[in-house]
Amino acid sequence: MSSCPNPHEEHERVLLGHGAGGRLTAELLESLLLPAVGGFPAGPPEGPLEDAAPLPGRPELVMSTDGFVVHPLFFPGGDIGSLAVHGTVNDLAVMGARPLALSVALVIEEGLPLSELRSVAGSLGKAAREAEVPVVTGDTKVVGRGAADKIFITTTGIGTRIPGLAPSAARARPGDAVLLSGPIGLHGTAVLSTREGLGFEADIVSDSRPLHRLVEALAPVGARLHTLRDPTRGGLAATLNEIARDSGVAVEIDESALPVPGPVASACDLLGLDPLHVANEGCMVAFVAPSAAEAALAAMRSRAEGTGAVRIGEATAGPAGRVLMRTLVGARRVVDMPIGEQLPRIC
Amino acid sequence: MSSCPNPHEEHERVLLGHGAGGRLTAELLESLLLPAVGGFPAGPPEGPLEDAAPLPGRPELVMSTDGFVVHPLFFPGGDIGSLAVHGTVNDLAVMGARPLALSVALVIEEGLPLSELRSVAGSLGKAAREAEVPVVTGDTKVVGRGAADKIFITTTGIGTRIPGLAPSAARARPGDAVLLSGPIGLHGTAVLSTREGLGFEADIVSDSRPLHRLVEALAPVGARLHTLRDPTRGGLAATLNEIARDSGVAVEIDESALPVPGPVASACDLLGLDPLHVANEGCMVAFVAPSAAEAALAAMRSRAEGTGAVRIGEATAGPAGRVLMRTLVGARRVVDMPIGEQLPRIC
Repeated sequence: MSSCPNPHEEHERVLLGHGAGGRLTAELLESLLLPAVGGFPAGPPEGPLEDAAPLPGRPELVMSTDGFVVHPLFFPGGDIGSLAVHGTVNDLAVMGARPLALSVALVIEEGLPLSELRSVAGSLGKAAREAEVPVVTGDTKVVGRGAADKIFITTTGIGTRIPGLAPSAARARPGDAVLLSGPIGLHGTAVLSTREGLGFEADIVSDSRPLHRLVEALAPVGARLHTLRDPTRGGLAATLNEIARDSGVAVEIDESALPVPGPVASACDLLGLDPLHVANEGCMVAFVAPSAAEAALAAMRSRAEGTGAVRIGEATAGPAGRVLMRTLVGARRVVDMPIGEQLPRIC
Repeated sequence: MSSCPNPHEEHERVLLGHGAGGRLTAELLESLLLPAVGGFPAGPPEGPLEDAAPLPGRPELVMSTDGFVVHPLFFPGGDIGSLAVHGTVNDLAVMGARPLALSVALVIEEGLPLSELRSVAGSLGKAAREAEVPVVTGDTKVVGRGAADKIFITTTGIGTRIPGLAPSAARARPGDAVLLSGPIGLHGTAVLSTREGLGFEADIVSDSRPLHRLVEALAPVGARLHTLRDPTRGGLAATLNEIARDSGVAVEIDESALPVPGPVASACDLLGLDPLHVANEGCMVAFVAPSAAEAALAAMRSRAEGTGAVRIGEATAGPAGRVLMRTLVGARRVVDMPIGEQLPRIC
């Protein structure tokens, strides 16, 4: 009706970017889903629909759920089955919790070869055994051809908080050291390269793996461990922006300290992607009090999944919510929250 | 290669019937999913991938998960949002548990009108508030057009066992009275009639509703309440067959006692369906010791959702696993486990 785009009209339908973990996802949550679903008087302090939350009246137990729709199902370093275990185990882990039990709900497209289903289910079971978390319950639904794409998996996890640890995205403080447990960009570029046949599959393997033992190794840091997050959808940029916003701090990181593997950098260059926006499934960001930074780094490096742990920056007093990167040429640039989809169906 | 059908070849791909809650679902679970996923040494006694299970080391807490793929999204008496709450609340309730917390994971097709999403989310929130269970955490994924059908919802629930109740599908005993809390066949025929435009929509309304308060009303029956189940996918026939198998008893029911509403009977006649195979979302089967039958019936009838409660039969000593119906003309017929899909995407 008008040549001027109307932001309301643009948003009348769900967009791919609404599921990308960036600003559009946050808008959908805050403007539609939370008001519609929320309002229960006894909701937890974080409010509903966060990634993980304590159970009402049982703060030692946390609950997390995640749907997995990765395409293709199989990629270097994993598949949708192992990813569905690692993703939920890690959402519990960054709440400072050990996984206690998992549930698995499958939505399968009619016609999926049983061999693929067996492979995915076997990989899921193997990942659960390796993480030492039992799958206690499940559900299977089948929809007609064309009504889903092969298989979607929703895993829900219950975890037990590790005594003495209470990390929260709202507990980062000015002066905190910002630590990263390993290289970034591997998962997203591995999946994308496989999907598009870009030829990086030989050089890039997803980092998908469970991180709860890395968190246990940090237990001696105790209350000085302020914040843990795994930078999945939206990448490190989204995670740092969320922590800066929720804690009311600024964050400064050094480009020179960022562990971006060469093949990831090449793939991102080719595709016009920012490695800071690419999803990871096996690394973790920690904000720790400066007095604990060296001990935390040493603890992370003591485990295989943390051998590449580095300090990438620090939290500062403000402006609240701002994330800056000191670039290789000595400038500073703002690290924005990704807006919408960069890599759909990456997890 | 051969003119003789090879059962193995027939089953090389996932069929719609694998998700219908009948014999094919059981086969898929037992021959493929449980062996692939299972094997964790500390699994619960029921084994993995049951509908609901106690948490390891915390038997007072139970966990249940269910994916909802109902088509269409809106039907008389509910929609996918309210159904996703009721289904999981009821899976907890029939374990003798009060719902403590829910998680919600959405897989949305790109292009879904935001108005439909708002309506579904609002209905989900309303159902959760009415059931007095908080939605504590969630997840949202978006897939491209054609990669899903509008929206799928997976809800996972944690419940607290009601002291003194320990119903189990394996605890039915010969002599038990078999009680049914209300009419059967409403949900499945309401959804099917809406989907196909059959014109029964004015007369048939889904029975979708939460049953946990009905279970609480049964608390005084205590240990004499042996088994509770909600006959969803596969209908009353599947539920009675599962209980007979798991408890090693036979079950005999009276056709004359079965509450089948007139419009449901008409719809089933027209469509060639057996009301015993049609899904319900708001009624419950109870096996109780004969000495408690009258008290249990009275307790159920004291609540709105149980006003239509009736005794439909009894458990007998055997043959184990056999379900028989005494028909209106005085004959007996075997009530079989449904094999595959009768009504796909009914929940």
